[in-house]
Amino acid sequence: MNDRILRAIRREPLDRTPVWFMRQAGRSLPRYRELRGEREMFELIRDAEASAKITALPLEYYPVDALVLYNDLATPYLAAGIEVEMRKGVGPVIADPIRSAVDVERLRPFDPQEALGFNLDQIRILVERIDVPVLGFVGAPFTLCSYLIESPRHRDLKGVKSFILEQPEAWAKLADFWAEHMAQFGIAQHRAGAGAIQVFDSWAGALSVEDYREYVLTPTQRLLRTMEDAGVPTIHYFNGNPALLPLVAEAGGDAVSVDWRLPLDEAWRTIGHDRAIQGNLDPIALLAGPEVAVRKTREILQLANGRPGHIFNLGHGILPDTDHRVLAAVVDAVHDFALREATA
Amino acid sequence: MNDRILRAIRREPLDRTPVWFMRQAGRSLPRYRELRGEREMFELIRDAEASAKITALPLEYYPVDALVLYNDLATPYLAAGIEVEMRKGVGPVIADPIRSAVDVERLRPFDPQEALGFNLDQIRILVERIDVPVLGFVGAPFTLCSYLIESPRHRDLKGVKSFILEQPEAWAKLADFWAEHMAQFGIAQHRAGAGAIQVFDSWAGALSVEDYREYVLTPTQRLLRTMEDAGVPTIHYFNGNPALLPLVAEAGGDAVSVDWRLPLDEAWRTIGHDRAIQGNLDPIALLAGPEVAVRKTREILQLANGRPGHIFNLGHGILPDTDHRVLAAVVDAVHDFALREATA
Repeated sequence: MNDRILRAIRREPLDRTPVWFMRQAGRSLPRYRELRGEREMFELIRDAEASAKITALPLEYYPVDALVLYNDLATPYLAAGIEVEMRKGVGPVIADPIRSAVDVERLRPFDPQEALGFNLDQIRILVERIDVPVLGFVGAPFTLCSYLIESPRHRDLKGVKSFILEQPEAWAKLADFWAEHMAQFGIAQHRAGAGAIQVFDSWAGALSVEDYREYVLTPTQRLLRTMEDAGVPTIHYFNGNPALLPLVAEAGGDAVSVDWRLPLDEAWRTIGHDRAIQGNLDPIALLAGPEVAVRKTREILQLANGRPGHIFNLGHGILPDTDHRVLAAVVDAVHDFALREATA
Repeated sequence: MNDRILRAIRREPLDRTPVWFMRQAGRSLPRYRELRGEREMFELIRDAEASAKITALPLEYYPVDALVLYNDLATPYLAAGIEVEMRKGVGPVIADPIRSAVDVERLRPFDPQEALGFNLDQIRILVERIDVPVLGFVGAPFTLCSYLIESPRHRDLKGVKSFILEQPEAWAKLADFWAEHMAQFGIAQHRAGAGAIQVFDSWAGALSVEDYREYVLTPTQRLLRTMEDAGVPTIHYFNGNPALLPLVAEAGGDAVSVDWRLPLDEAWRTIGHDRAIQGNLDPIALLAGPEVAVRKTREILQLANGRPGHIFNLGHGILPDTDHRVLAAVVDAVHDFALREATA
C-alpha cells in the first residue's frame, strides 16, 4: 500500500512528494467517455461498480498517489429531498431555491449511511482493488449552500451574498444543516475506507474577510471539527481570495489546499507550518504543453523546499481539454524531484 | 469647482471623503433607459452630446464628487480596426481573435486625437457644464488584450493565460501596442479636460504572482509611467487576488483602486501609505438595502481612519438591479462621516 498521501497529511518525512489531481477521473482521459457512455451523472454515481471503474481510471494513464471518489458535491442534495439538474457549463441547478427560513425548515434530514450508501459501496469496492488511498469529499457549507440559494448562480454570487446579509438567521440555519450532514457523510466515507476527506470550498473566495469571519467561519469550523473529533484526516480546499487564508486555516483541516494565486511558500507561511499544504499549479499551465507545465511544477516543488507535509496538486480541477500526457509528465516530474530532506 | 477627488489623489487633507461609483451612469438610474433609447452602445458613444447627458445623469440622483465618462473599454478596438460586438452578459466579442504574432502585426496603429475624437469632445462638453471633475478611463494591457485573445472568454481566462505562456513574445508585442496607445489616449483625455484617468485592470486577478510579475507588470508600468510623465493623475483599478496588490502598486498609479477582498486598512498598508487608495464596498452589499449598505460604508470609513488620500467607491461596478436610493444613502453617509483629521 502506497500511503504517502496520508503520511503527508500527517507531515511525516517522505522519500517523494505525493501527487493527485482534482477532477483526475474525467473528460481528460480518453477512456472516460467509453466508461460513462450515455448515462446521466447521478445515475452513474448511484451505480457503485460503474463509478469505481471511473474512479480507478487515472491509474491506467499515470501513477497518482491517490484516487478521488467519482461523485459530485451536489449528490447529497438528493438525499435531502432537493430536486437538482446538472446543467452543462453551469453546475447544479435547483428547481426551487431557498428564499427564506421557511424553506430551510423544509429540508429533509437524512442519514448518509442509508441515503448515500452507493457512495460508501463505491469506496468499499475500491479499497479492495487498489493500493493507493481513496479520498472522499464533501462540500463546505458556503459552497454547498450557494447553489441552493441562487440558481443558476450569477458570476458574482450576488444572490447568495445578499441573502446572507439580509437573512443572517436563515443563513445560519441552512449552513448548520449542511455542516452537520456533511460531517456525518465525511465520517461515513472514512469508516467505509476513505483515507481522508477533502472539504471543497470552491466559491468562498468571493467573500470579504469580514463576511467570511462573520458568516462562514463558524459552520465551516463545525464541519471540520466534527470530522476531526471522529478521527477523520481532512483536507480543506479553498479557491480564490488569498486574504481569506488565515481564516480558512482557522476553520480547520489537517491540510489546506490552496490555489495558484499565492506562491506556495507564502501560502504555507500564511496557514502556518504546523499544517500540511496541498497545491498549487494553475490548471491552465497544463494547456501550454508539457515543457511549461513541468517547469512550473518544479518551481512549486522548489518553493515547498522538501518540507514534510506537501501534497502536489492543482489549484483547481483539471480542465476538460487537458492532454493526459501532460498530466503524466507532471506526475513524473513530481516523483523524480529529489527531496532534500528525504528520509525514505 | 468641487475638486476633492483630485485633491484626494494628491493625498491632501480634506473636510470630507469624496465618493463616486464605477458604472454610476447606467441601468440603476431610471432616466438612463430614456436617455439611451434604442441606440446601440457604440453609436451612442460616438455622439458626444448624447453621451455627455448620460455621464451627467447621476447628479440628478445623488451628489457624487466626480463623473465618469460614458464610454467602454472596448471603444479603442474600433480605432485599431478590430470588429467588435457587445454581447449582453458577456462583454466585447471579437470576430477574429488574435492567435499569433502575425495577428498582432496586423493591428492598425492610430492617433486617439483623430480616431477617438468623440470621447474627447464629450469631455470638453462636460467640463463646460459641470462643477465636479470628469474622470476618463482606459483598459490596462492585460484586461484589454484578454478580450482580443479569447472571444468569448472562458470564466477562467484559460485561452488568455495559455496564450501568454505559450507565446510570450507575441503577448509582449500585443501588450505593448495597447500600453502605448492607451497611454496616448489617456493623455489626450487629460488634455481635453479629464481631471484624472482610471486604468481598469478588471481581470488580472486571475493571474498568479509569478505570471503577473513576468508578463503583466512591465506593460502596465509602461502605460502608467507614460501618463504620469505627461502629468496625468492616475487611478489604477484592480480586482481580485489581493496577493497581487504589491505588484499592482509597483506598476503605478497615484491612487490604487481595490476591491472588497481585503479590508481597506490592510490594503492601504499593502500598497503603501504614500499612495492614495480608492474603494472598497462590495457592490452586492447595495442589494441588501440601505441599512446594510450604510453600515458597511461606515466600517470602511472607519478603517480609512481620516487618513488623507481616500476616495470612497465600490470594489467593482454597480450591478444593474441596484436601487439608486441605496446609492444616495451611501453618498450621504460618506459625506456626513466626520473626518478626524479634517482641516478645511
